Amino acid sequence: MIIFVDMDEVIADTYGAHLELYNSEFNAQIRLEDCHGKGIKQCVAEEHLEMVKGYTARDGFFRNLEVFPDSQEVLRELAKEHEIYIASAAMEYPNSLREKSDWLDEHFPFIPWQHRILCGHKYILKGDLLIDDHSRNLKPFEGRKIMFTSPHNMSDTEFERADNWKEIAAKLL
Amino acid sequence: MIIFVDMDEVIADTYGAHLELYNSEFNAQIRLEDCHGKGIKQCVAEEHLEMVKGYTARDGFFRNLEVFPDSQEVLRELAKEHEIYIASAAMEYPNSLREKSDWLDEHFPFIPWQHRILCGHKYILKGDLLIDDHSRNLKPFEGRKIMFTSPHNMSDTEFERADNWKEIAAKLL
Repeated sequence: MIIFVDMDEVIADTYGAHLELYNSEFNAQIRLEDCHGKGIKQCVAEEHLEMVKGYTARDGFFRNLEVFPDSQEVLRELAKEHEIYIASAAMEYPNSLREKSDWLDEHFPFIPWQHRILCGHKYILKGDLLIDDHSRNLKPFEGRKIMFTSPHNMSDTEFERADNWKEIAAKLL
Repeated sequence: MIIFVDMDEVIADTYGAHLELYNSEFNAQIRLEDCHGKGIKQCVAEEHLEMVKGYTARDGFFRNLEVFPDSQEVLRELAKEHEIYIASAAMEYPNSLREKSDWLDEHFPFIPWQHRILCGHKYILKGDLLIDDHSRNLKPFEGRKIMFTSPHNMSDTEFERADNWKEIAAKLL
């Protein structure tokens, strides 16, 4: 099986990094639970919106993201039986490209460069399964689709869902 | 039609940049015609091979490549009727990622980030046509394949071929 795995909010904790930066810079105490059903931009004070939008353009933002629990172990196991590709819509953020490559080198060295894709639209991907947090990516994909739970997609009921990597393991291993 | 277009040796003159660097650093006079049927590594003196292999890792190498003649005009026309994606096996060279993005911004601004792909293997691409200089990329692709002529692929007779962008225009416009 050819499996495409998104990065942000699937193996990398992008939402949490936004909250951590925001809480520390504005002395706020927003928790992930406060954001259920909302994108990060709906979760912060409106007067801080422009600042928050700039987080992804900061040097080091994508390089220092936390890895989601169990994603390394489960993907390492899946890679024994399947072709695992990382597919991130990273071209929107040119500063992220090298950082994402380095991040994968550090945290997912068992996924070689041949299996890494930094792209825009994902409907040019040909494979059997896409694990992603965005319905705009899942919708046009032709194979099986699993929505990985993130605060921003919690009200979406259109797709098969996994809340964490233990659930992915239960489905696929 | 969804058309994938490779970067190096299809729209960007990577071979020529190698020769220019080599000739200037070793006071040599190798011309492109001298390299017909050979990869760059077969075209330089063996004692210089390690140095030449390092050219692609140099800062600025991919940022400063020349654009192949007519590629901008022809792709701009093709983009009016077709979905054009740039697809480069760039993940092998992490230093190239940002440089390729910036190079596209400068020379192909009409191809937006949503239509840019930096990848490894290309057989995960789903579309109708791939224009590429490497048989290893063309072979597993499911749609129409056009080999773009480069010194290194001149003895390959397996694929439909275009020697330049005027020929691509004659085939597709």
